[in-house]
Parts: sequence; structure tokens; C-alpha cells
Amino acid sequence: MMTQIRIAIAGYGNLGRGAEAAIKQSPDMRLVSVFSRRDPASVTLLDSSVPVYAMDDIEQYQNDIDVLLLCGGSKSDLPEQGPQLAGLFNIVDSFDTHAKIPEYFTALDAPAKSAGKVALLSVGWDPGLFSLNRLYGEAILPVGETYTFWGKGLSQGHSDAVRRVAGVKSGVQYTIPSESAMARVRNGEQPTLSTREKHTRECFIVLADGADAEAVRSTIVNMPDYFSDYDTTVNFIDAHTFSEQHSSMPHGGFVIRSGVSGSDNAKQVLEFSLKLGSNPGFTSSVLVAYARAAYKMNQAGETGAKTVLDVAPGLLSPKTPAELRKELL
Amino acid sequence: MMTQIRIAIAGYGNLGRGAEAAIKQSPDMRLVSVFSRRDPASVTLLDSSVPVYAMDDIEQYQNDIDVLLLCGGSKSDLPEQGPQLAGLFNIVDSFDTHAKIPEYFTALDAPAKSAGKVALLSVGWDPGLFSLNRLYGEAILPVGETYTFWGKGLSQGHSDAVRRVAGVKSGVQYTIPSESAMARVRNGEQPTLSTREKHTRECFIVLADGADAEAVRSTIVNMPDYFSDYDTTVNFIDAHTFSEQHSSMPHGGFVIRSGVSGSDNAKQVLEFSLKLGSNPGFTSSVLVAYARAAYKMNQAGETGAKTVLDVAPGLLSPKTPAELRKELL
Repeated sequence: MMTQIRIAIAGYGNLGRGAEAAIKQSPDMRLVSVFSRRDPASVTLLDSSVPVYAMDDIEQYQNDIDVLLLCGGSKSDLPEQGPQLAGLFNIVDSFDTHAKIPEYFTALDAPAKSAGKVALLSVGWDPGLFSLNRLYGEAILPVGETYTFWGKGLSQGHSDAVRRVAGVKSGVQYTIPSESAMARVRNGEQPTLSTREKHTRECFIVLADGADAEAVRSTIVNMPDYFSDYDTTVNFIDAHTFSEQHSSMPHGGFVIRSGVSGSDNAKQVLEFSLKLGSNPGFTSSVLVAYARAAYKMNQAGETGAKTVLDVAPGLLSPKTPAELRKELL
Repeated sequence: MMTQIRIAIAGYGNLGRGAEAAIKQSPDMRLVSVFSRRDPASVTLLDSSVPVYAMDDIEQYQNDIDVLLLCGGSKSDLPEQGPQLAGLFNIVDSFDTHAKIPEYFTALDAPAKSAGKVALLSVGWDPGLFSLNRLYGEAILPVGETYTFWGKGLSQGHSDAVRRVAGVKSGVQYTIPSESAMARVRNGEQPTLSTREKHTRECFIVLADGADAEAVRSTIVNMPDYFSDYDTTVNFIDAHTFSEQHSSMPHGGFVIRSGVSGSDNAKQVLEFSLKLGSNPGFTSSVLVAYARAAYKMNQAGETGAKTVLDVAPGLLSPKTPAELRKELL
């Protein structure tokens, strides 16, 4: 019988729960433990037979874990946990603060190398699968333009921003890509698109008792950085409709490379898109597939910080290279 | 100044010409020579300063070439040339007879390993980029179904078949994916689709003098293997319209993975598509990007037969890993 890869999860929110479920879909892996900063007795898993331990005790489980999935947030959890845990385990995380990736890569690389471990950072869909497709596009069609559109999807950061507005009881924000802008890109026009032309924003708001709807709307649509550069629609709904229709976390988007090949000046368009019923459910599925790759890379002697750009695609699959050549090529 | 990768081309048809043009779009490479089985004096390149040599003399140029692109056909050229040239050069080819890939891989692996070279086979879009997307889809969403649709595009094999029909002077065949089938797949229905439901076929025919249109139509639509399992439309046009409207080689297609993530039972859909103005122009662009990867892999000490599944995406780019992390992640 195959030896299963032993996976552990650090941080049990939406992403951790998704990772637990994704591991269950993967017969070549098993979840051996979950670590939380909460009281372990208060953490309820999907599968109650897996032990939950205190994050502070994680060091003593080094020999029991092949790959540790860091399922905390990029703002405060990962910058602190990543460099520390990269010195103890093979880790995979979804660090997604794009501008700070180079700095975070450096912070993981040295401890991972010293410990002889792989630290695979910024795994997910953007950064992640979208990064891969930006790369394939520009490497294959060096003369061209790359466009990334997001949505339709719930933006956590923008939803947080509308919820901070006085008079808002509950609120969510959806980012919506412009169909007409995408049509121009797909047509090979290589247009220059302003921020306002690429995406619109749509908010669904439950007002607090006695709040002034027009004041709320105006505060939202004029909010600098978040909304003022976009065309924003604000819809007011009741609490029941809100919980019925706006409790899931859909997302997705499009990476389009429009280029021209050399011999015949032909227009060539590559497009990759995601339509995700659940953003954390999908991101955690990507993390789990890359955990398999991190394990194989470390088994092959690789160490240090890595990104999806460093991972040969075949390593993501539980199938052998010969099976993959026969079935998928 | 950067040392350019020295590329040579073996076989100068549509694919070889495309490769020459794609190399020109890549400042980190240069084309050093072209090899042909035709009389070298009869081969006219886009850039007349590059020497053309006889294929029989290729062995003496071993020290001048970093990567040799094999631009011959999969039916008879590559099975003969591949194993022989893999023992002399790092090679990249577009071998696309899906069922014979495992056997061809084996035939390249031993000579490449003995010679300390990399032999990167079956590079292009299918096999190639489509294979990668089938792999990413099933590795990330193990519970789901993968669908590949081709077109709208000119199929070389089916065009050859219609041209062999008595009474056909000129002819082309386009493969057309079913919009309604794709809509069901994108909607996450995971339908079971028959051959007839996935694609239709459309032919444009110039009749020979005195040919019987109905007899030609009937022979085509009932042709076993090629057309009898499909709904086929046959259009008769004049020679002028044919040369005006049916001389380019567009193609493309779609790989769609429809799956369900575990924690929330959410529908998740990945889609990769290509809309290619010129099939050989694009395929040769893919070959050239993978030539860069083959060179880097061999420089790093790797040898033997490889496929796109073995190539870390970052190796395709002329940019450094640090630049890629900063710009593309």
C-alpha cells in the first residue's frame, strides 16, 4: 500500500476547513493534525477524529508531519508564522500581498534552506494560477499585452471597507469585470484600459436603524482608493435577503494574453478563467495540490523558498510521470 | 552583454518558418542555422543571412548549436529523426500522435541520456498547453470532469481526407465546438457528451469540372472515422472565394475542468482557451519558449526525455526568478 503524505493545517478558518475537505478528496494524503491559537477544545473540525493542538506546541510534532499548510491571513499571521515555521517544516501558504512577495520570499528562504525544507509561498489563484498564466502568455507570445480581470466576485477588502461606513449594518461588495472591455481584449485589439473601464463595483447594504441611505451611498462611492476610481452601484436590501443571497463567497476572473506571432502577423489569444462557487474552497484545493509537489520536491533534495513558477506541473498530480504521459498529454 | 542561446531548425515548412520568426521576437536567442532535406540552395528563409545546410551534414554542427528545433511532421519525420538527433543535440519537437507518445518518449530517452542532452517532446498546444491545463484541473479539483473542445479551426487531417474524395478540386474542413455543450459544461453540469454532441464539422469544397455535388457531399458526410459520427455541413464555393477566405490556418479550443470543492460542495470551473489566427505560427512560438527551458534544464545538469509536464513554468521566461516574482506573481 502507498504511504500517504502526512499533512497538517496551521490555522482553522475558512481556508483551513477547505484544506481539511480537499485532503479528504486526495487518497494519497491524510490529515494528521490541526494547530490553532484558539483553545484546541473549542475548535470543531469536519472530521472529529483528527487531533487539534495548540499552535505554541507545534515544534514537538516535527517528526509527524511531511507538509504543514499555513492557513492564516497575509496581513499579520503569515509574516510572523512563515519565517518561523519554514525552519521546522515543509510549508505551503497563500501569502497574497503582491507587493511584499519578494521580501516575504527572502524571509522564508534562509530558514528553509538551513532546515533542509521547502517553503512554497503565494499559492492560490492570484497569486498562483493567474501568475502562471501571465507567465505562459508572455513567454510564448513575447510581442503582446497581458490583461487580468477579476470577478464576478466578492472582495473581502472592499466588503470590509463598506462595513466600516457609519449607518451600514451589513454589507458586501462584488467586483464585476467589464464585458465590453473583455470583448475588445479577446478580439486582439490590445486596448489601453483605465481602471474605470476594466471593472465596476456593486454593493449590497443592510442599513442600520435610522441611517440615511443617500449619505451612506455617497460615502461609499466617493471613498478614495477603494471606490472613487470606479463606477459603483449601491443596493439597499433587508437583512433576510442579505443572509439568503449574499452569504457565499464566489469569485473568479480572467487572464488574457493577446499577441502576434512573427511569420504571418497572426493574432493569437490565450485565455484562462476561473468561475468559483467558493473562493476559500478553491484556494485551499490549490494549496493541497501544491502540498503534494512540495513534498516531492523536498524528497528529491530541493530546499528553500519556492513559488508556483518553480514547480513542474507533473509534481501536482498523484499519478506517475508515465501515467500522466499516457493519459493527459 | 548576455550570451544568446544558439538555436537551429531542422525542417523548414510552416512550422520552421514560424520558429524562425518567433526566435526573432526573442532577444535572448539567435538562429544559427537551418537544416533541410531539400537542396539548401532552394530553401528561402525570412532572414537570408542565416545559413541553410543539408540535413545529412547536421552531425558536424554539434558544437555550434545549443538547442535544435525539430520542425518535421509526426507521421514519418519525427519517429525517424527524433531518436537519432536526441543523441547529438538538445532537441525540442511537436510530436502530436497522442497514442504513440509513451513509445516515442522511450525512444528518445536512452540516446538523450547517453549524450547528456535534454529531449523535450510533444511541445505545442495539444499535446502541450492543453495537456498542462488538463493536469492542473484534475490535480486541483480531483472530484470533477475534464472536457476538451477543439476549434473553431482548420483540421489538417480532415482537410486531407476531403481532398482525397473524387470530384474535389480543393477543400478544407473546420472543426466547430458546440456552444450549447460548452455552456452546459461551464455551468458545472458535468454532462456525458457523445462525439456528435461535442463538435460539428464544416467543409468548403471547390468541385472539379463536371463533378456531382451530391455524390461528393454524400461521400464526405458518410466517411467512416472522419465524418460519419458527426453532423457535417458541406459548402460548395468557387476557386476565387476559396483562395480569398480559406487560405489561413486558424485553430484553437477549450479545456474545461468542472469540479466540486469539499467543504462547501461549491461548483468550481477552470477554463483555458486559445483563439489562434495561425496554428503553425502559434505552435512554433510554443516550441521556441520551450527551447529556452530545454537549454536551462540541460545547463542545470538534466538529461533524458522530458515533456511539458516536467518543465517548471519559470524556465520558459527570459526573466530571472527574482524579476518574475516581482512582476508576475
